[in-house]
Amino acid sequence: MADQFTVTPWEVVGSIDYDKLTRQFGTSRISIELKERMKKDFGELHPMLRRDFFFSHRDLDLVLKDHEQGKGFFLYTGRKPSKGMHIGHLVPLVFTKWLQNHFKTNLYIEITDDEGFLHKKERQWDEVQAAAYDNILDIIALGFDPNRTFIFKNTEYVRNVYPLLLKAAKRVTGSTMKAIFGFDDSTNVGISMYPVYQTIPTFFEKKRCLIPCAIDQDNYWRLQRDIAEGLGYNKTAAIHSKFLPPLTGVTGKMSSSAAAETAILLTDDERTVKNKVNKYAFSGGRATLEEHRKLGGDTSIDVPYQWLSILFEPDDAKLRQIHDDYRSGKMLSGEMKMLLIEKITAFLKTHRENKKKAESQIEIFMKSGKLAKEMWTRTYE
Amino acid sequence: MADQFTVTPWEVVGSIDYDKLTRQFGTSRISIELKERMKKDFGELHPMLRRDFFFSHRDLDLVLKDHEQGKGFFLYTGRKPSKGMHIGHLVPLVFTKWLQNHFKTNLYIEITDDEGFLHKKERQWDEVQAAAYDNILDIIALGFDPNRTFIFKNTEYVRNVYPLLLKAAKRVTGSTMKAIFGFDDSTNVGISMYPVYQTIPTFFEKKRCLIPCAIDQDNYWRLQRDIAEGLGYNKTAAIHSKFLPPLTGVTGKMSSSAAAETAILLTDDERTVKNKVNKYAFSGGRATLEEHRKLGGDTSIDVPYQWLSILFEPDDAKLRQIHDDYRSGKMLSGEMKMLLIEKITAFLKTHRENKKKAESQIEIFMKSGKLAKEMWTRTYE
Repeated sequence: MADQFTVTPWEVVGSIDYDKLTRQFGTSRISIELKERMKKDFGELHPMLRRDFFFSHRDLDLVLKDHEQGKGFFLYTGRKPSKGMHIGHLVPLVFTKWLQNHFKTNLYIEITDDEGFLHKKERQWDEVQAAAYDNILDIIALGFDPNRTFIFKNTEYVRNVYPLLLKAAKRVTGSTMKAIFGFDDSTNVGISMYPVYQTIPTFFEKKRCLIPCAIDQDNYWRLQRDIAEGLGYNKTAAIHSKFLPPLTGVTGKMSSSAAAETAILLTDDERTVKNKVNKYAFSGGRATLEEHRKLGGDTSIDVPYQWLSILFEPDDAKLRQIHDDYRSGKMLSGEMKMLLIEKITAFLKTHRENKKKAESQIEIFMKSGKLAKEMWTRTYE
Repeated sequence: MADQFTVTPWEVVGSIDYDKLTRQFGTSRISIELKERMKKDFGELHPMLRRDFFFSHRDLDLVLKDHEQGKGFFLYTGRKPSKGMHIGHLVPLVFTKWLQNHFKTNLYIEITDDEGFLHKKERQWDEVQAAAYDNILDIIALGFDPNRTFIFKNTEYVRNVYPLLLKAAKRVTGSTMKAIFGFDDSTNVGISMYPVYQTIPTFFEKKRCLIPCAIDQDNYWRLQRDIAEGLGYNKTAAIHSKFLPPLTGVTGKMSSSAAAETAILLTDDERTVKNKVNKYAFSGGRATLEEHRKLGGDTSIDVPYQWLSILFEPDDAKLRQIHDDYRSGKMLSGEMKMLLIEKITAFLKTHRENKKKAESQIEIFMKSGKLAKEMWTRTYE
């Protein structure tokens, strides 16, 4: 039987069976034991962990062991520049920030402007660069540690990593790329080489690297794990999230390039947020008021509820209350939507203020901060 | 019928039919008319042109036109680092130097340390870097104009060209690479991408680029000519040489990695040169002294004569005399060899002195000279 869903770094379609996906990808579910251990190590668990939104991993147990033994680890995440970031893009970043806060670790954020340019035929260079700048501001606005975070564009940092990039590329054949990424002979040679670059930041330190990311990025880490030890480094660890469902329903993932109704952009104003949620957010409510009061709503398919659960209501007791009220019919769909609109609006207001301030911080994260400065003196051979 | 010879950037085997090769590659023979025109433009013709050692071209007529119209052009050549350079490696460089002297043009010399590392499985990074340094000294020793020449290693200059490299790579598919270079799915992704980098220096100026090179490098220029105009640049021009025959006979080309007897290395001392030429140089002389005096030698297969003709005896009258004396049997094989040994020894003595001086000039050619300095401020997008 054909799969009912597709998950690649460039495409997420259908209703995803996450259990099946971990088996397909060869990753591990985050077990209850591992969660308990994290709780001990972390002091607390981020809601995305408590609620199984981060659900899968590679070698997370080894990361915890390194932490427990005082060896430490470092974090790496990234972003392919896109014209406007949306709420879904924040998921790995918000979680990464929480990890950095807890562990005071170094964090490398790779802006894959090369990929952004190479991947789409019609994409122009200047467009990608403008998007990169804008995305970096959105990232900085989330509040990473300016002295422990290095944000870099691939095209700018390439001199520093090129020898290592060649060493890594030398270990990867065309067949491997085709098998992992589904490339074929019509793929341009830039994009055929590019995934190697995405593995390079995992080699920035001799410690183990932990990558918080959505599960669709795992292909890159399979590639990394094929070549890491031959290059004298650790296989990278990863912790994988599910996808924040698009506004329009709980299948696939949000896209800023798809129809506007599937996503809330970080630039959407209060009025737009309100309209989008009210008009497009897929509801688990009933057809009529009477029916809803009597039978209650279905939180498992209600996108506003899902968004609250994943991003906007960290308080378990409050979320439980919302859940119960909705299920019982006490809370209506319109009320659920209103709640989400308020949360998003408040978040975006703060975010935009922080983004404004980020303009003066960009130099610190990319050049002059403690870690950034150090990174510009290094060459990886 | 199968070809009796193979010519690719990495392999030259067999007795080469240069007429057939120009047809295969789609290049043009340098016609008598074109030579006359060059003579007018250049004031004189380099012996390698007079003697048809440079025998083929692409768009050389357009270069001459640009020159005649005062638009000018620029030169580009390169070198894949190898452990010890041999006499054969000097051919395009010596000719390029002559062109630069005549036209006072800018010249870019690309040291393809990335290719050197990627191409051979067992090749180590440090080895390639040491070879690159040594080769650069050999190149500088030939006497290029320090203010009009920029020598760069691909791994070091990559930041400055990366955006343009991506733009070029985006226009080249895996199929194209396979067709032009004979790559397959077992080729590593670094080497599959690398030829694009070799096209980049042709875009360093908006003027037309002229590349003096051996004919086996033409694959790269076919690739360049496929993509150049789409990127807003000129198709590059090229002028192709034959191969300096190996000491051991007039087929194939010299190789420093093959058995030592095929090549004279730039580091060979007087005694070694003498031994190699006397012992290994393929002679067109007769089996016995009597026969030789009676029938004369065959200059067309006599390697010492070929080397004199190509590199070591620029004076046509003198070469004619040698030719006639050998053909008539007046000059013996041993005398021909002695003549070559003297020429090579004198050349290598001067070369080694110049190479010593080159150590203090390396900074000028790669960083601080007029052109080099300018190049480090540029980014190609």
